Amino acid sequence: MFTGLSAFPLTPITGERVDERAFAGLIERLADAGVDSITALGSTGSYAYLSREERAAVARLAVRGAGAVPVMAGIGALRTRHVLEAAEDAQNAGVAAVLLAPLSYQALTEEDVVGLYETVTANLSVPLVVYDNPGTTHFTFTDELYARIAGLPRVASIKIPGVPAKRDEAAARIARLRASLPAGVTVGVSGDALASTGLNAGCQAWYSVIGGTLPQVALEITRAAERGEPGAATEASQRLQPLWDLFARHGSLRVISAIAELLGLVGRPNLPLPIRGLGDAARSEVAGVVDRLRLR
Amino acid sequence: MFTGLSAFPLTPITGERVDERAFAGLIERLADAGVDSITALGSTGSYAYLSREERAAVARLAVRGAGAVPVMAGIGALRTRHVLEAAEDAQNAGVAAVLLAPLSYQALTEEDVVGLYETVTANLSVPLVVYDNPGTTHFTFTDELYARIAGLPRVASIKIPGVPAKRDEAAARIARLRASLPAGVTVGVSGDALASTGLNAGCQAWYSVIGGTLPQVALEITRAAERGEPGAATEASQRLQPLWDLFARHGSLRVISAIAELLGLVGRPNLPLPIRGLGDAARSEVAGVVDRLRLR
Repeated sequence: MFTGLSAFPLTPITGERVDERAFAGLIERLADAGVDSITALGSTGSYAYLSREERAAVARLAVRGAGAVPVMAGIGALRTRHVLEAAEDAQNAGVAAVLLAPLSYQALTEEDVVGLYETVTANLSVPLVVYDNPGTTHFTFTDELYARIAGLPRVASIKIPGVPAKRDEAAARIARLRASLPAGVTVGVSGDALASTGLNAGCQAWYSVIGGTLPQVALEITRAAERGEPGAATEASQRLQPLWDLFARHGSLRVISAIAELLGLVGRPNLPLPIRGLGDAARSEVAGVVDRLRLR
Repeated sequence: MFTGLSAFPLTPITGERVDERAFAGLIERLADAGVDSITALGSTGSYAYLSREERAAVARLAVRGAGAVPVMAGIGALRTRHVLEAAEDAQNAGVAAVLLAPLSYQALTEEDVVGLYETVTANLSVPLVVYDNPGTTHFTFTDELYARIAGLPRVASIKIPGVPAKRDEAAARIARLRASLPAGVTVGVSGDALASTGLNAGCQAWYSVIGGTLPQVALEITRAAERGEPGAATEASQRLQPLWDLFARHGSLRVISAIAELLGLVGRPNLPLPIRGLGDAARSEVAGVVDRLRLR
């Protein structure tokens, strides 16, 4: 479950409510495409904005719709107590694993973060993915901290925020990181633009934004890397360069939200306020790229 | 209400629950000291970590205990819907004003933030303080954005994150900012170490961490500046330099939490997990400074 393509679907929000029908449609699409796992309630799934009740409902819908595909759910919250509640709800919903980022308002120390993961893993009965996303959490892991937390029971994988762009540097980075982790703990790349680089460098999983909305495109890259065809993985990713450029300019969430709208998968708007979708000019650019790359 | 000393009390949390008795004691202490306003549920009051019910209860306790002293309450949340709920609860509790920071998980655009303040002020019946705290929100205001938001109905004050350390530069900064704002909107300084500099430079209010736990010390600085005795304000602040050094090293929240413990005002621990209080070595340093400066 902690290898291959993990697809991160949007949680579409329309009229301040989760659009459960559209969400169920996204999950069905992912299950049909044959992704290796579905991570509901990732950053792309806006977990940090949802109420406890909404998160529980989304986890239940994902498990129900995913069939045989394992479902993971993000359980992050600013307060440890609320993380434990989200973990309980996700497990009651039947998720196969949970994903935990150290959210911060006040800056966290390393000891705070170790304490968080100790408390949460001690109260879990499913595996946990360590979710390192400094752009949203404003907490920076060191490799020593990864290793310390990876030694806790139930830690199964680490979602790293990216790899160096150069092939040799990426390979060295992943080799160094893997050497410091217990053998059973996988390393998964995020940051879609460099995912092919990460997979070719030895990352065993891709925790993927585009995988949640454009699973076929993400599977093409993933399967090529898995077959030991790094050139094919790189080429498939390079074809998407106009999409990576949009991600860099507008952020992956707003762009993937607009793509899902354009494909008719979700309504408009679909992000939780105060986050607004892209303006008309940026949406036109996105529509142009969707057409040109024949994204679907 | 948007001038002078606004004191930001801790919300003591013990055993994962708000210690309502200790909180009521903090409020009584502030009312007795004669602060100009009390801001419950500021960053020092850990608003971002509390449930809706806890926040409502804290706002009610603050209003009940403050007597004639006006109470403001922080209403920030990641999602606009939750901000509106907190605003409703705070107003039902009887607060005189609310304080709103643009919390972020996904990075916010200027348009997102303008939309947030537009929606919230359109639904408010009390004044609002714009709370600029980039260290926790990871959103940076420009002066143009301040001016745009200050033009909305019910915006009464802006809490700025600090001023330049040099007297002339601070005065120029505040003059420039005030010139761009509507006449009725006050500017309040935060960042306690430079509060005397800010007040001497023309800030009309001090939104104060130490004011919430050490009101006499904060009032001495505030009243000197208000009397037009900048030298006395500066001296009173300089005497606290060992305290400012601790704030710089450990963060104001963890230090003021330890001080409140040492003065017997709150229990230990009193911060919301995952945030841990200071370790033993740092606590000893704090105890030394409390003794040396005779803080009480």
